[in-house]
Amino acid sequence: MPVQPGCAFCAIVSGGDSRVVLDDDGCLAFLDHRPVFPGHCLLVPKDHVETLADLPAEQVAPFFLRAQALAAAVEAGMDADGTFVAINNRVSQSVPHLHVHVVPRRKKDGLRGFFWPRLRYESPEAMRDAQARIRAALERPGR
Amino acid sequence: MPVQPGCAFCAIVSGGDSRVVLDDDGCLAFLDHRPVFPGHCLLVPKDHVETLADLPAEQVAPFFLRAQALAAAVEAGMDADGTFVAINNRVSQSVPHLHVHVVPRRKKDGLRGFFWPRLRYESPEAMRDAQARIRAALERPGR
Repeated sequence: MPVQPGCAFCAIVSGGDSRVVLDDDGCLAFLDHRPVFPGHCLLVPKDHVETLADLPAEQVAPFFLRAQALAAAVEAGMDADGTFVAINNRVSQSVPHLHVHVVPRRKKDGLRGFFWPRLRYESPEAMRDAQARIRAALERPGR
Repeated sequence: MPVQPGCAFCAIVSGGDSRVVLDDDGCLAFLDHRPVFPGHCLLVPKDHVETLADLPAEQVAPFFLRAQALAAAVEAGMDADGTFVAINNRVSQSVPHLHVHVVPRRKKDGLRGFFWPRLRYESPEAMRDAQARIRAALERPGR
């Protein structure tokens, strides 16, 4: 199991943390110690990878099947109305080891959406430029 | 392709929207018309499912392989430093058709994190209670 020395999440994977909720061959989920709301979990692959893009293709299915099960379990177990499932890649990523946040949500829970403020594209050309850049990046070899 | 009448995203799937960046057998990605930042995309399964938990198991791998490719492409195409990848399930979900937000992020871009404010569990017992509830929910048949 590739471990990154000094990585806080590799230490949890290695160390039998008491906050674990899910432990299988490939991944581990545990309670965030500073939750947005109680029941907020983090799901990590046991192998050290930094971002979503770094997760090996063969691990995508088992990892996200677990994310899916965890989202359902956090919602049901915490008697919530829904969940927020999120990954920060590099920016705002507190620990550089891929982790999926699963946060229970309730109506009117006061969580400020991450979608405020929203913008409008400055022009139709600006929108087409963004579209063209992303399409081109998707077409590069390896994507 | 199961379509939900009146669903805004099923309409985009059916309708040849001009904002599309990725189109394959199972999923579609397009620019959000009110982006957090330019290049903000939404990835949807073509079949109408409401939440992450509703995505059929056999679609999890192809869908998240696309999410992974899209996150890499949004970062590269928009010359960003990272990405924010998020799913709202029911609460704060503007359109009840599963969608993954992929938002390009830059250092000091001013996006208020969704992680403010953070809490602490009221007590060790409160943390253990949340843990036990989620573990029990994970152990229910079908998870």
